[in-house]
Amino acid sequence: MATVATGALLWQRYQDWLYYHPGLGVYLDISRMRFDDALVSQLQPKFVKAFADMVALEAGAIANPDEQRMVGHYWLRNPALAPTPEIATEITTTIDSIAAFARQVHSGAIHPPQGGKFTDLIVIGIGGSALGPQFVAEALSPNPPPLNIHFIDNSDPTGIDRVLSRIAGRLNTTLVVVISKSGGTPEPRNGMIEVRTAYQAQGLDFAGYAVAVTGTDSQLDRVAAAAGWIARFPMPDWVGGRTSELSSVGLLPAALQGIDIHGMLAGAKEMDIATRTPDIKTNPAALLALAWYASGNGKGEKDMVVLPYKDSLLLFSRYLQQLVMESLGKEDDLDGNKVYQGIAVYGNKGSTDQHAYVQQLREGIPNFFLTFIEVLNDREGISPEIDPGVTSGDYLSGFLQGTRQALYENNRDSIAVTIPIVTPQTVGALIALYERAVGLYASIVNVNAYHQPGVEAGKKAAAVILQLQIDVVKVLQETRISAPLTLSELAIKAGAPDRVEAIYKILRHLQANDRGVTFTGDPAKPGSLRVAWVDR
Amino acid sequence: MATVATGALLWQRYQDWLYYHPGLGVYLDISRMRFDDALVSQLQPKFVKAFADMVALEAGAIANPDEQRMVGHYWLRNPALAPTPEIATEITTTIDSIAAFARQVHSGAIHPPQGGKFTDLIVIGIGGSALGPQFVAEALSPNPPPLNIHFIDNSDPTGIDRVLSRIAGRLNTTLVVVISKSGGTPEPRNGMIEVRTAYQAQGLDFAGYAVAVTGTDSQLDRVAAAAGWIARFPMPDWVGGRTSELSSVGLLPAALQGIDIHGMLAGAKEMDIATRTPDIKTNPAALLALAWYASGNGKGEKDMVVLPYKDSLLLFSRYLQQLVMESLGKEDDLDGNKVYQGIAVYGNKGSTDQHAYVQQLREGIPNFFLTFIEVLNDREGISPEIDPGVTSGDYLSGFLQGTRQALYENNRDSIAVTIPIVTPQTVGALIALYERAVGLYASIVNVNAYHQPGVEAGKKAAAVILQLQIDVVKVLQETRISAPLTLSELAIKAGAPDRVEAIYKILRHLQANDRGVTFTGDPAKPGSLRVAWVDR
Repeated sequence: MATVATGALLWQRYQDWLYYHPGLGVYLDISRMRFDDALVSQLQPKFVKAFADMVALEAGAIANPDEQRMVGHYWLRNPALAPTPEIATEITTTIDSIAAFARQVHSGAIHPPQGGKFTDLIVIGIGGSALGPQFVAEALSPNPPPLNIHFIDNSDPTGIDRVLSRIAGRLNTTLVVVISKSGGTPEPRNGMIEVRTAYQAQGLDFAGYAVAVTGTDSQLDRVAAAAGWIARFPMPDWVGGRTSELSSVGLLPAALQGIDIHGMLAGAKEMDIATRTPDIKTNPAALLALAWYASGNGKGEKDMVVLPYKDSLLLFSRYLQQLVMESLGKEDDLDGNKVYQGIAVYGNKGSTDQHAYVQQLREGIPNFFLTFIEVLNDREGISPEIDPGVTSGDYLSGFLQGTRQALYENNRDSIAVTIPIVTPQTVGALIALYERAVGLYASIVNVNAYHQPGVEAGKKAAAVILQLQIDVVKVLQETRISAPLTLSELAIKAGAPDRVEAIYKILRHLQANDRGVTFTGDPAKPGSLRVAWVDR
Repeated sequence: MATVATGALLWQRYQDWLYYHPGLGVYLDISRMRFDDALVSQLQPKFVKAFADMVALEAGAIANPDEQRMVGHYWLRNPALAPTPEIATEITTTIDSIAAFARQVHSGAIHPPQGGKFTDLIVIGIGGSALGPQFVAEALSPNPPPLNIHFIDNSDPTGIDRVLSRIAGRLNTTLVVVISKSGGTPEPRNGMIEVRTAYQAQGLDFAGYAVAVTGTDSQLDRVAAAAGWIARFPMPDWVGGRTSELSSVGLLPAALQGIDIHGMLAGAKEMDIATRTPDIKTNPAALLALAWYASGNGKGEKDMVVLPYKDSLLLFSRYLQQLVMESLGKEDDLDGNKVYQGIAVYGNKGSTDQHAYVQQLREGIPNFFLTFIEVLNDREGISPEIDPGVTSGDYLSGFLQGTRQALYENNRDSIAVTIPIVTPQTVGALIALYERAVGLYASIVNVNAYHQPGVEAGKKAAAVILQLQIDVVKVLQETRISAPLTLSELAIKAGAPDRVEAIYKILRHLQANDRGVTFTGDPAKPGSLRVAWVDR
């Protein structure tokens, strides 16, 4: 009888908390998160404030005070909400021009300088300029797509070489989209310069193959304008990188792959409407924020493990890593208190990950909550039977339900988001759902979701390292005829006596790449090394 | 002066703790993990035991008591260590037969039934039978490879369709390797059945394209033998899934892609020798285990974020997720105490992930330690200059060093593993290093690294769901002419009155796939739904 009671109680709780969006066919179930009505009451005033913050945000408040910017990603899918007619027009014009551009590329009206049609697409970008386009490409790209897409999302020379070798022989039919808001971020700049070099090496004029997505009058915008690139699409200053998938950043690569961008925008718009409801229980983003708060005590005490049970959604958790962690991972709250907020996000896909680490999830350290992403439709067409009456899709569904149950019985909580099928509409809706949930959660825990003050420190430290490299190489070049130096001697000569370790790392890297540095001594004892320079 | 002192002290600590393997050119740096000599002394006796445990393991002790199995992955790269001559011969014979098989496939001596050469390779496996082969393919596959590799690592119908559509037109030159130790794991079995169906649909005899990697006389072995598959390779019972990359599981796909498997084995053997040293400070695996212990207080209190700064090592952290989490994530220790052990692992690659979530790592919740994987060699050939004297590889190196420093200054610790270049040798060495580190850490925290008792629960729960589906469909089919049933009525008729929610989920999935179920009522109120059956 106890079991019956448990099942019946859980079924009641499931129904009590179930959210369903009839237009999108999306369900959200937080019934397996252990929270009680007292918590909901306690958070009620915070949610009232969060809903009000969101109204102000959508009305054009300066929500990113660091950069004195508005935060307008919600306007992208409903330009009527934009605070000025100029912004509304800019949104509509950009979307229309992206759609038209993609049509012209597909038809061959826009074509490589030598004629023919573009066959491949390299997207160069990093962070929000890569994670969204990669997620959407994996989720929605038709097979075969009108253009084969490749990403350069790093400053790794081997990685760039690999992309170029994959399209060897087709570079002269490859379109390149460079995405960088400022144009000053090194990784896309490096990628662009390397790829441009590859075109030049084949005697091709890069400008005839290149498109820019960037802020108006940015460094990249000026480079592209001066060289006469095929096209430039604006990236508005009121869109942040991690919420840029439904701006030109995400829409251009999607449209070029033949993905229905209007469908993505429509799905997001529908979800935006639903998540505007100022009531916890009928607002799916508020329900998510509530569940996150309940699990991690409002302090991110539990990691968010995201498992879509659908191969094509593999990159959703990587996308969410940025959206959630960069938005919420903050040292200070809005009142200047040190809070060290955040929620760590990881996961790949189910049921695959069950065979990787469900052992730890079920039995090990209970430092997480799970989010299942369920897709009801198995495939186009009819499935073969694996066993009588049972398909591979039934297995996948059974693995999800079985894992959810087994984990819950072992006191591991989970959320389940169910979508009917992976389409532009539902992908747009998922993006919008999590964008809003992050915004509401940030309000509740009183942090700014729209800045990233900590990102600069690593960039600055890297710039210092590169300057140190230049300084040290200069010293070595000037002293190359004299006896090899110890690292300490070199550090003093370079005016950086306290940076021996950094100098050692720089030299070790140069030496490994035949860049003129030679070491003598025992590599196991770097303090003993002497260094000299030989011109290459 | 304070700054100088800090730099000098850290440089000294760096040198004091630096491990260097001259044969492999591998460095390990744990100097930026905050631990002191007192901890090392305290752990000393535990390490003595851990080293002794490892000796016993390598000598053939029954290290997996659940299954009464030896744990012999170290023998794979040094058969002379195997406890019996029979095992040594089995290892050598298998490696030789894999190498010979790959040569014959490449030469066309082994070819599709209709002649020609194999062009593509589908690997069907999950867990250790996918993560290792995927990691190695991404890291080491030549471009172009002799066979294009594709993975089916799930029971997702759309995912299977996508793989098949990518090789549309080449199925008759596609080799299929099915990897499953028992042959009873549903995902690879489902994948095999679906792929076999696809061959049959094209009038192709699947047996002429199929290879099995499985335990001798397993369910899969018998299927393959009976049907006359091209080849069968044994998967020894003393190799666990998560340590199987250097067994037939990993070596066959690697060899077929033209990867030097002897190089992988040699690199692992070299690292095995180094990690056998019974001394913390000169054993890199012990140093890793020490650093993990120090960071997480021996309880996994901090997540392990793994960032290889090299695109080709992208999947290393996914590989480590299984190796670390499945090995360490245990409820009970070896004395039967409830300990809820484990270490959560996540990460993709640097510097890309810096643009995703370094904001949280630097400023947010300090619930992690980082592992940087550095690769000294930038690329084959000379790099173009991005700025005078500076390459894209210098930037990447600078990002790593800068991030390490910026995080450390903000009290976030990190480990750095440095390899000279990504080769079969260094990849084999990385695998061996982490296999041993996990084994030693498990001994120190007193858990069994070699079983996975929690994995069964989810499987059983899923099997119960599938049986419930069969039962419920039977009831529906039998009652289809009468009035539609409520879910509660149906649950009672199916003999599962407490499982209304599970039944609802099953039916919702069947309904979404046109499998005969129809609902009437409001989908937002599942308790109100009535369900009927119509024959398809």
